[in-house]
Amino acid sequence: MYNTFGNIFRLTSFGESHGVAIGGVIDGCPSGLVMDVDFINAELSRRRPGQSSLTTSRKESDEVRFLSGIYDNRTTGTPIGFMIENENQHSADYDAMKDIFRPSHADYAYFCKYGIRDPRGGGRASARETAARCVGGAIAKLALRPYSILIRAFTSQVGAIRLENRDDYDWSEIERNSVRCPDSSKAAEMASLIEEVKSNGDTIGGVVTCRIDGCPVGLGEPVFGKLHAALGHAMLTINAVKGFEYGDGFDAALYRGSERNDAFYVRETNIRTLTNHSGGIQGGISNGETIYFRVAFKAVPTILTEQATVNMKGESVTFTARGRHDPCVVPRAVPIVEAMAAMTVFDYLLLDARSSA
Amino acid sequence: MYNTFGNIFRLTSFGESHGVAIGGVIDGCPSGLVMDVDFINAELSRRRPGQSSLTTSRKESDEVRFLSGIYDNRTTGTPIGFMIENENQHSADYDAMKDIFRPSHADYAYFCKYGIRDPRGGGRASARETAARCVGGAIAKLALRPYSILIRAFTSQVGAIRLENRDDYDWSEIERNSVRCPDSSKAAEMASLIEEVKSNGDTIGGVVTCRIDGCPVGLGEPVFGKLHAALGHAMLTINAVKGFEYGDGFDAALYRGSERNDAFYVRETNIRTLTNHSGGIQGGISNGETIYFRVAFKAVPTILTEQATVNMKGESVTFTARGRHDPCVVPRAVPIVEAMAAMTVFDYLLLDARSSA
Amino acid sequence: MYNTFGNIFRLTSFGESHGVAIGGVIDGCPSGLVMDVDFINAELSRRRPGQSSLTTSRKESDEVRFLSGIYDNRTTGTPIGFMIENENQHSADYDAMKDIFRPSHADYAYFCKYGIRDPRGGGRASARETAARCVGGAIAKLALRPYSILIRAFTSQVGAIRLENRDDYDWSEIERNSVRCPDSSKAAEMASLIEEVKSNGDTIGGVVTCRIDGCPVGLGEPVFGKLHAALGHAMLTINAVKGFEYGDGFDAALYRGSERNDAFYVRETNIRTLTNHSGGIQGGISNGETIYFRVAFKAVPTILTEQATVNMKGESVTFTARGRHDPCVVPRAVPIVEAMAAMTVFDYLLLDARSSA
Amino acid sequence: MYNTFGNIFRLTSFGESHGVAIGGVIDGCPSGLVMDVDFINAELSRRRPGQSSLTTSRKESDEVRFLSGIYDNRTTGTPIGFMIENENQHSADYDAMKDIFRPSHADYAYFCKYGIRDPRGGGRASARETAARCVGGAIAKLALRPYSILIRAFTSQVGAIRLENRDDYDWSEIERNSVRCPDSSKAAEMASLIEEVKSNGDTIGGVVTCRIDGCPVGLGEPVFGKLHAALGHAMLTINAVKGFEYGDGFDAALYRGSERNDAFYVRETNIRTLTNHSGGIQGGISNGETIYFRVAFKAVPTILTEQATVNMKGESVTFTARGRHDPCVVPRAVPIVEAMAAMTVFDYLLLDARSSA
Repeated sequence: MYNTFGNIFRLTSFGESHGVAIGGVIDGCPSGLVMDVDFINAELSRRRPGQSSLTTSRKESDEVRFLSGIYDNRTTGTPIGFMIENENQHSADYDAMKDIFRPSHADYAYFCKYGIRDPRGGGRASARETAARCVGGAIAKLALRPYSILIRAFTSQVGAIRLENRDDYDWSEIERNSVRCPDSSKAAEMASLIEEVKSNGDTIGGVVTCRIDGCPVGLGEPVFGKLHAALGHAMLTINAVKGFEYGDGFDAALYRGSERNDAFYVRETNIRTLTNHSGGIQGGISNGETIYFRVAFKAVPTILTEQATVNMKGESVTFTARGRHDPCVVPRAVPIVEAMAAMTVFDYLLLDARSSA
Repeated sequence: MYNTFGNIFRLTSFGESHGVAIGGVIDGCPSGLVMDVDFINAELSRRRPGQSSLTTSRKESDEVRFLSGIYDNRTTGTPIGFMIENENQHSADYDAMKDIFRPSHADYAYFCKYGIRDPRGGGRASARETAARCVGGAIAKLALRPYSILIRAFTSQVGAIRLENRDDYDWSEIERNSVRCPDSSKAAEMASLIEEVKSNGDTIGGVVTCRIDGCPVGLGEPVFGKLHAALGHAMLTINAVKGFEYGDGFDAALYRGSERNDAFYVRETNIRTLTNHSGGIQGGISNGETIYFRVAFKAVPTILTEQATVNMKGESVTFTARGRHDPCVVPRAVPIVEAMAAMTVFDYLLLDARSSA
Repeated sequence: MYNTFGNIFRLTSFGESHGVAIGGVIDGCPSGLVMDVDFINAELSRRRPGQSSLTTSRKESDEVRFLSGIYDNRTTGTPIGFMIENENQHSADYDAMKDIFRPSHADYAYFCKYGIRDPRGGGRASARETAARCVGGAIAKLALRPYSILIRAFTSQVGAIRLENRDDYDWSEIERNSVRCPDSSKAAEMASLIEEVKSNGDTIGGVVTCRIDGCPVGLGEPVFGKLHAALGHAMLTINAVKGFEYGDGFDAALYRGSERNDAFYVRETNIRTLTNHSGGIQGGISNGETIYFRVAFKAVPTILTEQATVNMKGESVTFTARGRHDPCVVPRAVPIVEAMAAMTVFDYLLLDARSSA
Repeated sequence: MYNTFGNIFRLTSFGESHGVAIGGVIDGCPSGLVMDVDFINAELSRRRPGQSSLTTSRKESDEVRFLSGIYDNRTTGTPIGFMIENENQHSADYDAMKDIFRPSHADYAYFCKYGIRDPRGGGRASARETAARCVGGAIAKLALRPYSILIRAFTSQVGAIRLENRDDYDWSEIERNSVRCPDSSKAAEMASLIEEVKSNGDTIGGVVTCRIDGCPVGLGEPVFGKLHAALGHAMLTINAVKGFEYGDGFDAALYRGSERNDAFYVRETNIRTLTNHSGGIQGGISNGETIYFRVAFKAVPTILTEQATVNMKGESVTFTARGRHDPCVVPRAVPIVEAMAAMTVFDYLLLDARSSA
């Protein structure tokens, strides 16, 4: 609970937006895993600010420094400590905000809970914390390579611009556009919407879809460790997430059993389903079909127009945010969704390792 | 993980649909709590089959038997063991199914994971397991009484019939109709839709909305123990659930920060928000406003018409389900959603007791 | 924590001495394990009172009733719920004690912690709770059979009568005498000491030694999950235990490194140690040698002579215990030590399955 | 489990002896705690090598660097990340050992478990890891100050030189001598024994006794979370520990109930015990008397004389350790025992915070 994620493969994360550093400890990582530090830093840079005109111009170099758990470039089975130094901290940008509670931010709730808060850049509530998740996710992806499990997230909605759910997208397109959408024309629409929103000092929400291909049958631990419940929990811990659905999701409410049951059939020697409304999980356990789910993100509450709020003295005040912020977090959220999915799936592989005698 | 739910207030549940009994152990319940067994059984009967023409006609008396943890009708701080005997087990109804994998059921996934499955009524994957959750939830509700936290779930959608989200429903209406909907005319529409579906041997999905009023500011444990992530996880462990959203949920993707930020203002001496798009939770911590969320349920896959599937020999076969089943689980899911919410909120109250020096 | 033991293979136990029943839930047990109920009940009866003149004459039939998790006499991977009905409850014996705090019992501490206590037979603090551990331990022993790991505990000390630590005892002797000592002449001495103590209405302490043979190299999870720390924790949770030592234990304080290092050598193709002062564990990880440890038990505080104490009104009073009690718990503790060791070793086998890629 | 210690107040530790750094993350520390960094570094330096002629001459400055969780010199309730850079790493000293398994060290067990090991200074198995525990313990001690709970450990045995257990020692003497023994004449004897052992390139074992005064009644969570079981587990995770006993410990085996029961009496308005054979804990719950326990340490296996062992090719070889080592770890173990006790007691205070309604 709290700041530890996972059961066997566990990430314990620490760090505030403008503190000394953020980082974490990965425990339960099997020994003998060859570290691919370039890959890990590449994953980190997918999350990094300033990668395109659609994201905040804030610069963070975000190179991970490993402190333990690695010898001869392989994991030793001991905890992997790591840190990412914080830099380029325009804390001054936040001085104006240290006495006020920003609307729809965590300021007020943190202050009430803890009686103290680190106002610099949102402190622990800042999405900067997710950099540690990307490190954990990258290591989980390395561990998943031998299983040829493929985890792929992408932007499927920005505002009202939606991507229909299809299996035949050119997935290599995802990293070719700044929105991280596999449909280049939709990507262009989304990009111009984000540019327009940005020009108004406003922000906008969206949806990330994630697909997990190649997941073996049998992952998931009923009843409170159902695979989709673990994935849902993982996604709901990401900043700004408001909803999670898998398979048919909320649409399932509209249909009848006769319309949406996934009939089994035999393909070569494998038992498969004709349709996949279940989203690759039945009874909380993977059934070998593609796992897919959608994660809803709200518009980030930091907008550059004047807003009314309350200060710490309990007085009504107005303020206008300064600093550099994302007009839409969804493109940068894509690697974070993948990271959380990778840690969850690998953790469940380890859990499943001894489910039958 | 697995079959234990919660951090401090923990329910460990056991039991299959047609085994000897289902039950559980509640650990971490504070001592001195006066047991109201009538209330607990009343909560259980809200979940019970056969309560109306909209639910399965299967009869279960479902009286809970407490085995430990109670003395002089008060909790002693020791684990509360309880069981509910299984009865009226028409296992014969399932003989036909013990060699086949029912579409969109857990049969196939369980068999692949464990190499063995209890086919009688779905075994552990049956929603009968949720009776144990209702006992845990009822005890959590008793523990929440002194805090005057009110947890109220209701049916907000069946098929395409939706209830708009309003604060001014007559909540006492919920238990007056068999759909458990606070709007009597919508309830009537929903009821006739379910009757029609049932007459065709079919099933249909829906949505349960839950509201938590009176929750104090400060519940929630960032970053992986965010309150909404815990609620989402709790709901996603319920049978047939396909999605969870809180506050604006998936609609949040459509809007701009300037449209959906919740401005703070001072009401009497309290800091409140003018709107509540956040759903009572900011940064994973309750902010004192009403917490609300929606839970999507698929149509139960057991339909009374012929379906194609595969048997355990890997042969294509057809079968037609027999037995008595719910045409729509949503009305009976309402108390289960409340139970999971109550256990989560009470557990987080206990967790929060330790958050500041 | 609390009433759950283990990481992957987990026993959650419940029940008071004179409540309705004691029992538990075993979660994380692999599927496909053939249940040998006769063996399980045999293990239970090794713990049962009234088995000889050296133990309390209190009769408990202690037949375990399984409630879930088993189908076709095999485990299904779902939680195994079980209970043992309480019977023959001479609660009247305890009426006299319900208003007083018995010396060196848990009465006072429980009352202070919880503000309420179940005075009947010590309630949750009674050693009757250990019957649930014997069920868990018996199932762990069944799971360990294919690994040919042998767990053997015996009485090695009663009062000042000590057994020297030797490898060449006739282990089959253990169950042939009522003391459970592998040396028949020492067993006779111990038995007569216990008879003498009993005739004075007194009680006496002792030590149980446990040996684990055939444990593979590599069990143990540094640094806080060291195998000996897990075994020590397990033993220290048993009623009346005052100390735990493994290998040289407290004697290790007396010697020099040059006297007690275990030199490695090659035997056939195996790396072994010439001596085993380490007790089969180095750095918290099993090294393939015999694991052995000693567990110290105090004399049970229930004696049949008059004692001074304080009642719940805070008044000085005297009282004399009634009821039937063990003059020495050690013989009955032997199977409990084995049960806790078996659960620990099997849990660590499951944990280790995930330690290298 | 693994590298995380505690339930609510949790230390997750990382780092190898000769890696980049050791450190950890403290989660669950209440907010608002004023950090006394001088005190924390003072605690660290009590553990530091090179503090006297009785300890290794290896120099480590061991200044802790906090990375998160602190603002305005107070804890914020977010995870406290910290690190201690490794320096002065004479890894060359270990080159000779990287292909051999040192007797009674963890080398062989680690290699078998993980298939890889960091041979530099024992890697993760090195006692250097305990520096992170001292940081956690120091913060726990700061949190315990308002409760006026006093935790005091000292050297009570070196080789055959024992200190009798008395309440009237001048505790301020402990830090005045290099052995950390409250009896100055015994301290002198112990010191000369250690000097003699050191002059022979040998090492020797000993015992640390710990007393916890001022602990409130009611700490401890039966049945698997008994306070003494938690303390025993905590101590057994410390390097070189072979045994744990509390109260009468192993001596309890020698006596009769009539000789060792702790009679209750009323002192002013408090219920106290006339004797304290129970060691301040009854039924796993503190009873308000002084908690005391003893921890046995073996002689460190690194001796400077030639030893026979086996290399990684499975060949018999001889080797002689080089480098700077402790002739007796006990004096430096004293602060580590206190640190583990402090973390355990504070964690149990937090656990107890909600044990009654």
